[in-house]
Amino acid sequence: MAVTLGELAVRFGCELRGEPGVRVARVGTLAGAGADALAFLANPRYRAQLDTTSAAAVVVNAAAAAAAPCAVLVSENPYATYARIAQLLHPPPPLNPGVHPSAVVHADARVDASAEVAALAVVAAGAVIGPRAFIGPHCTVGGDARIGEDVRLVARVTVGSRVEIGARTIVQPGAVLGGDGFGFAPDKRGWVKVPQVGAVRIGPDVEIGANTAIDRGAIEDTVIEEGVKLDNLVQVAHNVRIGAHTAIAACVGVSGSTSIGRRCMVGGHTGFAGHINIADDVVVTGFSMITHSIKEPGVYSSGIPFEDARTWRRLVARFKRLPLLEGRVRRLERPAGGPTSGDGDDGDE
Amino acid sequence: MAVTLGELAVRFGCELRGEPGVRVARVGTLAGAGADALAFLANPRYRAQLDTTSAAAVVVNAAAAAAAPCAVLVSENPYATYARIAQLLHPPPPLNPGVHPSAVVHADARVDASAEVAALAVVAAGAVIGPRAFIGPHCTVGGDARIGEDVRLVARVTVGSRVEIGARTIVQPGAVLGGDGFGFAPDKRGWVKVPQVGAVRIGPDVEIGANTAIDRGAIEDTVIEEGVKLDNLVQVAHNVRIGAHTAIAACVGVSGSTSIGRRCMVGGHTGFAGHINIADDVVVTGFSMITHSIKEPGVYSSGIPFEDARTWRRLVARFKRLPLLEGRVRRLERPAGGPTSGDGDDGDE
Amino acid sequence: MAVTLGELAVRFGCELRGEPGVRVARVGTLAGAGADALAFLANPRYRAQLDTTSAAAVVVNAAAAAAAPCAVLVSENPYATYARIAQLLHPPPPLNPGVHPSAVVHADARVDASAEVAALAVVAAGAVIGPRAFIGPHCTVGGDARIGEDVRLVARVTVGSRVEIGARTIVQPGAVLGGDGFGFAPDKRGWVKVPQVGAVRIGPDVEIGANTAIDRGAIEDTVIEEGVKLDNLVQVAHNVRIGAHTAIAACVGVSGSTSIGRRCMVGGHTGFAGHINIADDVVVTGFSMITHSIKEPGVYSSGIPFEDARTWRRLVARFKRLPLLEGRVRRLERPAGGPTSGDGDDGDE
Repeated sequence: MAVTLGELAVRFGCELRGEPGVRVARVGTLAGAGADALAFLANPRYRAQLDTTSAAAVVVNAAAAAAAPCAVLVSENPYATYARIAQLLHPPPPLNPGVHPSAVVHADARVDASAEVAALAVVAAGAVIGPRAFIGPHCTVGGDARIGEDVRLVARVTVGSRVEIGARTIVQPGAVLGGDGFGFAPDKRGWVKVPQVGAVRIGPDVEIGANTAIDRGAIEDTVIEEGVKLDNLVQVAHNVRIGAHTAIAACVGVSGSTSIGRRCMVGGHTGFAGHINIADDVVVTGFSMITHSIKEPGVYSSGIPFEDARTWRRLVARFKRLPLLEGRVRRLERPAGGPTSGDGDDGDE
Repeated sequence: MAVTLGELAVRFGCELRGEPGVRVARVGTLAGAGADALAFLANPRYRAQLDTTSAAAVVVNAAAAAAAPCAVLVSENPYATYARIAQLLHPPPPLNPGVHPSAVVHADARVDASAEVAALAVVAAGAVIGPRAFIGPHCTVGGDARIGEDVRLVARVTVGSRVEIGARTIVQPGAVLGGDGFGFAPDKRGWVKVPQVGAVRIGPDVEIGANTAIDRGAIEDTVIEEGVKLDNLVQVAHNVRIGAHTAIAACVGVSGSTSIGRRCMVGGHTGFAGHINIADDVVVTGFSMITHSIKEPGVYSSGIPFEDARTWRRLVARFKRLPLLEGRVRRLERPAGGPTSGDGDDGDE
Repeated sequence: MAVTLGELAVRFGCELRGEPGVRVARVGTLAGAGADALAFLANPRYRAQLDTTSAAAVVVNAAAAAAAPCAVLVSENPYATYARIAQLLHPPPPLNPGVHPSAVVHADARVDASAEVAALAVVAAGAVIGPRAFIGPHCTVGGDARIGEDVRLVARVTVGSRVEIGARTIVQPGAVLGGDGFGFAPDKRGWVKVPQVGAVRIGPDVEIGANTAIDRGAIEDTVIEEGVKLDNLVQVAHNVRIGAHTAIAACVGVSGSTSIGRRCMVGGHTGFAGHINIADDVVVTGFSMITHSIKEPGVYSSGIPFEDARTWRRLVARFKRLPLLEGRVRRLERPAGGPTSGDGDDGDE
């Protein structure tokens, strides 16, 4: 579909500098866009590419607008405006309402007539599929699960029994929503499985990445609030709660019963201990090991940037003899003629 | 199903303090349980909730029993006793023996008459499915694989050819048992694939988490012994052996040919180098980098807890100039009038 | 199938020391091989096992050849030669060309007559399946995707729309190729989804591990060049480029728009920041946190090997008071009689 710049300016509340009748049919990068494409500039790293873009138009902020060699849609938030225009130009594939003949839908499931259940999907007894929901190929929707309106389970998503998914939520392939939590009681003869009888409640406008796993609660539910965004390969253990609009990058693990606040941002490979609480508006940088609760908004880190291997080995060697170094400093601090025995470890911890 | 406290006391060997005829129908948390529910107290963190619980009964140890405002089942191991009662009150869904018409079972596979093969599962030639096993929707059981009695492949589990799974083992959705190991021989023109001709042998009473991957052996088998519990998104490489009753948390990776002992516990995000041996009864805390063998039982760690980002950056800056600091201490230690040249690095490593 | 040592020597260019008519039917380990098996020695760790092997023959280098108690195939690169012989002795299961009746192939897809589409696979409109490709059980091939000749999608692989896979590439179960990238624009009311309109292009001779996720590009494509090997549970974000013959171990994450060079090797649990460039021939050891570009070939590291927990806690405690230690050294360095006030932090960063 092609849209005129004039329409875009009106629809998305931008100032247009250029011909309103020019049409764009797709989005492109500053460097790669052709004459029918719209590009954007948000990351200053790509500023130099603006000068030479071949795009029909760009979305930029007011400061950068003058530099563009083409039509400009001026926005205070060029990235968000670009995202909305891209949604218009590149909508998801249209639904094909109905149940594919190869899908297996239990007689006691309720599938809205406007929903699509794709090839080889399974919908169990008691499940409810809402209006305009898309249940992609190889998805399983478990017993008594509830799928809200306009939800998209892209493909091969496993939704366990009694799991609820709010409106407009998108789930990428391979995600498992409602596997059993990791609950085992130690006993003399080994581990005793603790039945995981809670479910998972996922709010509206959530997005869940490929091969991410969200466990059902042990007794009560695991909860993902509205607008949360989880990247690929994220682990969410039983009884976790993730607050609204929090975004979590790939390869993060959240241990059981931990609560993360609203509007948090978590970098990749971070891990959270169990049974802790993270305040709203916390930013955690990648590779952090979050061992206890965080009560104040702010930025938190662990993880040490790399070095060349030889330098790194020298640093690790020094790290490992830090107690010795501290001892040497302590001896230097001692007044001449002071005691020389008992000069052991200073007994911290 | 509802059970009387008297029955529970007898069956699980607890002392009952309260009316034996009271019935419980489900489990609940101390804070959330209703009048038909049984709760438990094991983690002291939740001790205060005991005073005000509305549960019909609680499982607690003798020390806490007096504080309960309701009937009490006294147990030396309340969590394990709770787990067993929860298994009784919340059994897995009953089997529906037989092969679903949409499943694809090869004529040369043997499926026990008491087993269930669910919708859209695939069972290949030569596979053997034992008594009362459940092969969930979208599972694949590869050629000549053997699935023991009472095994539950919950949904969308891929079992490769010749993989064996012991009795009562439970596999959560998305797990891959028997993908090819990561074996490539370097050559002038790139990597030469090393065929992975071993299989995976999984013992009885194992549980494997969602989206976990266990590779088949390169020549001989990868082995998971009885009672092992693996959480979600765990990577087990080819020819690993994991000893009986070891529990491994999410996002852990175990490199090829490494052997982990019995009754070990491994925290999340830990990684094990290849070709090493870990003794029995080793505990590894989360985020550890296990680079060499461990010969003694005990607790082992690496991973540094987080700080606020400004504090953390200052710590990292100091860490990176540790060689300089050591040099300054060395100069201070030098007797006045000593040499001042050649004061370089002390050449460790 | 059984092959004579004479045939192997000719075919793979090895010197044979032993009877050319002896036949081997399978591969085995030095310790486990029987009288019909061929073993190899490449890792010096296993050198002692050579002396007592019961294998019919071994592949070794010239230096080790004299020690073998059996026939020997001498190779400069025993592991690669072994790999090629193993491919001959243990070929993948033969194809069964055609579309399984339970598969769902759109009328507008093109499946080469020599390809196999296995049970319960889905092939969408516009997809092209090349000669001798294998589309395993429970795979989905999205609209307009292109699968090259001799590709093997082992089982339950999700290939998104417009994704291209080069010849002979192997994809292990659970991999997701072409999920949406993690693109969201922050806005006053939360996150706005940025449509991910690029695709994934995967070169020939690539191997992709179980449950690995490769996101489609935001605008242009994510690119995996020829001969790349990705292990299990690897995350590749949108618009990443991975250069030819690079090998990446399990649990690694590569953030968006990062480019990794050719012939790199990356250890497990490593993470790469976004928008950085890694040169060719870089080796990154496991658990590294790669925060900025690497311009020179070489070996790079972060990650600190473990200690027993008590030692580790002491090291962490010292690490956390490094600023104090530096202050103490600074005071010691001060000439006697110098200032004693204002002795605060030295104000770096």
